[in-house]
Amino acid sequence: MKSWLNISADSDFSIANIPFGVFKSDRLAARVGCAIGDQVIDLKVLHVLGYLENLPFELSDLESPSLNAIIARGKGPCRELRLRVQKLLRSDVPDLQRKEHHVAQALIPQAEVTMCMPVEIGDYTDFYSSEQHARNVGMMFRDPDNALLPNWKHMPVAYHGRASSVVVSGTPVRRPSGQLKPDPEKPPVFGKSRLLDFELEMGFITHPGKPLGEAITTAQAEEFIFGLVLFNDWSARDIQKWEYVPLGPFLGKNFASSVSPWVVTLDALDDLRVAGPVQEPAVLPYLEYEGHGHYNVGLEVDIVTPDGVATTISRSNFRHMYWNMKQQLAHHTVNGCNIRGGDLLASGTISGETPESYGSMLELSWRGTKEVKLADGSLRKFIADGDTVVMRGHGMTAAGDRIGFGSVSGTVTCD
Amino acid sequence: MKSWLNISADSDFSIANIPFGVFKSDRLAARVGCAIGDQVIDLKVLHVLGYLENLPFELSDLESPSLNAIIARGKGPCRELRLRVQKLLRSDVPDLQRKEHHVAQALIPQAEVTMCMPVEIGDYTDFYSSEQHARNVGMMFRDPDNALLPNWKHMPVAYHGRASSVVVSGTPVRRPSGQLKPDPEKPPVFGKSRLLDFELEMGFITHPGKPLGEAITTAQAEEFIFGLVLFNDWSARDIQKWEYVPLGPFLGKNFASSVSPWVVTLDALDDLRVAGPVQEPAVLPYLEYEGHGHYNVGLEVDIVTPDGVATTISRSNFRHMYWNMKQQLAHHTVNGCNIRGGDLLASGTISGETPESYGSMLELSWRGTKEVKLADGSLRKFIADGDTVVMRGHGMTAAGDRIGFGSVSGTVTCD
Repeated sequence: MKSWLNISADSDFSIANIPFGVFKSDRLAARVGCAIGDQVIDLKVLHVLGYLENLPFELSDLESPSLNAIIARGKGPCRELRLRVQKLLRSDVPDLQRKEHHVAQALIPQAEVTMCMPVEIGDYTDFYSSEQHARNVGMMFRDPDNALLPNWKHMPVAYHGRASSVVVSGTPVRRPSGQLKPDPEKPPVFGKSRLLDFELEMGFITHPGKPLGEAITTAQAEEFIFGLVLFNDWSARDIQKWEYVPLGPFLGKNFASSVSPWVVTLDALDDLRVAGPVQEPAVLPYLEYEGHGHYNVGLEVDIVTPDGVATTISRSNFRHMYWNMKQQLAHHTVNGCNIRGGDLLASGTISGETPESYGSMLELSWRGTKEVKLADGSLRKFIADGDTVVMRGHGMTAAGDRIGFGSVSGTVTCD
Repeated sequence: MKSWLNISADSDFSIANIPFGVFKSDRLAARVGCAIGDQVIDLKVLHVLGYLENLPFELSDLESPSLNAIIARGKGPCRELRLRVQKLLRSDVPDLQRKEHHVAQALIPQAEVTMCMPVEIGDYTDFYSSEQHARNVGMMFRDPDNALLPNWKHMPVAYHGRASSVVVSGTPVRRPSGQLKPDPEKPPVFGKSRLLDFELEMGFITHPGKPLGEAITTAQAEEFIFGLVLFNDWSARDIQKWEYVPLGPFLGKNFASSVSPWVVTLDALDDLRVAGPVQEPAVLPYLEYEGHGHYNVGLEVDIVTPDGVATTISRSNFRHMYWNMKQQLAHHTVNGCNIRGGDLLASGTISGETPESYGSMLELSWRGTKEVKLADGSLRKFIADGDTVVMRGHGMTAAGDRIGFGSVSGTVTCD
């Protein structure tokens, strides 16, 4: 598929992608758009100009400051909307490309807009679904010979996170304060976290689910998944360590989590499907699934120092999941828990088998026992004030189309 | 303070109370009201008739199907609104009482309305702040000689819960299914929870807080608390037990939590303040507080069997908290975590020192080792299908006014 727009081969936003986001500019109030190459296409303008006729969307859905309204319409309508936008951008479709004055209204360089938080998140859940990450944590903090806890291979373990502090890429992240216990023999002290970390994750956004009390099966799960984002689940390891037994992570996590602004639809990722790992022991029937539920999306993490030197410190892949999204959603709802449109379900840290693919400083520095060297010669065990953490991700289809997520970044501030 | 309305001495909704809720009826769409005796006063009608003049509320705030719009106006305006309603109901104020046709429009018997979910909850957090409850759980599941975990007396331990499945009193609660591990030597099995429990809690609803990154101090905390509800944090003990290490409770909790429909303002509880326990070891400075932050609110739990026989199985009190709401809110935000208007922060199970005051079947049956006898002679270790769990709470002011919460109830269904 080719577009009449000039799209760089290394753009994440090929015509095969068409992700959704919310943008604004000096002259435009926040509204819904799609990314194409280095441009944004304004869906409000497309609606006004009549290009979205016969689709089940109101103008108000598209001049909304979040994607929730379009997500609430459900999978089918969102699929039609994406296909319509994609069609309008195809080189063999003259409708929009021949109308210069419409093109001028509908397309805006990404450099001229500000991306907003794409979704008003209802509930945010964080899974713990990468086996190597769970093994690494278990080896460091528990028993190296029994790194995985007994339940880990039976269910996609998860906990509830905080929705209010999920922020869009570019939002500064303040180093959190809290209770620390640097000396195990002494009482806790209050202070700034010294062990600030990122977690390389992906998250998916849901369509409205079933009523409370009804489960979603693995076979139905994809009908309730709108799309995916890159997700940095910032973590303060020292706060987390002292607080988390017995009820799980709380203040060590809820000071901020960052999402990428473009939501890549599950449809767009269809050509990136790959088989998941053999699951042994066999899972319970409600976690069995058909087809491929894993995705070959390469992921990278950079640390950029205050003077702008970038170092790629991790190269991982979304395929390094033990539990896939179908299983996560089936597990989350098997007790009747309801999901709403705009809920966020994140993967947990995605670590591969090799040390270069670990998805957190905790693992890369092996609990601070070794240092990660940056391109400017400086060393890191955890994230320093002024550092910017940037995550990127993309996959290539068999047809050679690049399907990418752009990036999620956040700079750590301290005062 | 006396009302011109005839209010029974055993009504939770004396003129000193004036809680807020959302109600609807066959002829009225959901809107905001206050409870007074056995009546609801319709705030939309009061606004239309001009009784709320010079208050900073729009008609749309009051014809809204949730309290979020009024809560978003902040503490001061909500305080003025409650005082205005209270004044209109006072026997020495003729304005409303003399206008029979206005009274007929504004007052509706509670028996004729349906109460709705009062608040659209943003994030829900559950604390673990009753010492006796934490001790009981520690004694049962960990070490009787070290029942409290090391962090417990240093911080109000908490975890994030699920907002989507918080339901209003009267909503049936379906017995959840999930992974159970009845035989520790064998793999988990899938099935209906056999150990379904309630947790007697209270929850508070917040006004919009500070921006992300800024903490709320204990001295500021009450300015961000709108009011309180009774809260039943339904729990499936067998699901919880197998899933909760290391990331905390998840499917064992998120199938349902029930709230009472009337939100009693913090202002209304002012005369019920009592001193809290001496906190030893001393807390860190950010958790120190001035004045009394505990409340003398008697709490009761009934089990009502399918044939309507009620047995009060627990008598507890909200004063049995180690950590109070000021401390909870200061702790929650000390890392910069933001709160929004309509967030729910619950106390955790409220258990007193005597066995009759324990706030869950887990404790009342001491992990199923003894049976609780009901008035019809039947026995319970946990909650049976068809049982209704009813929680009530009220306190008495020095002036003899009753400030109560009404009730929260839920019937367990199974299919």
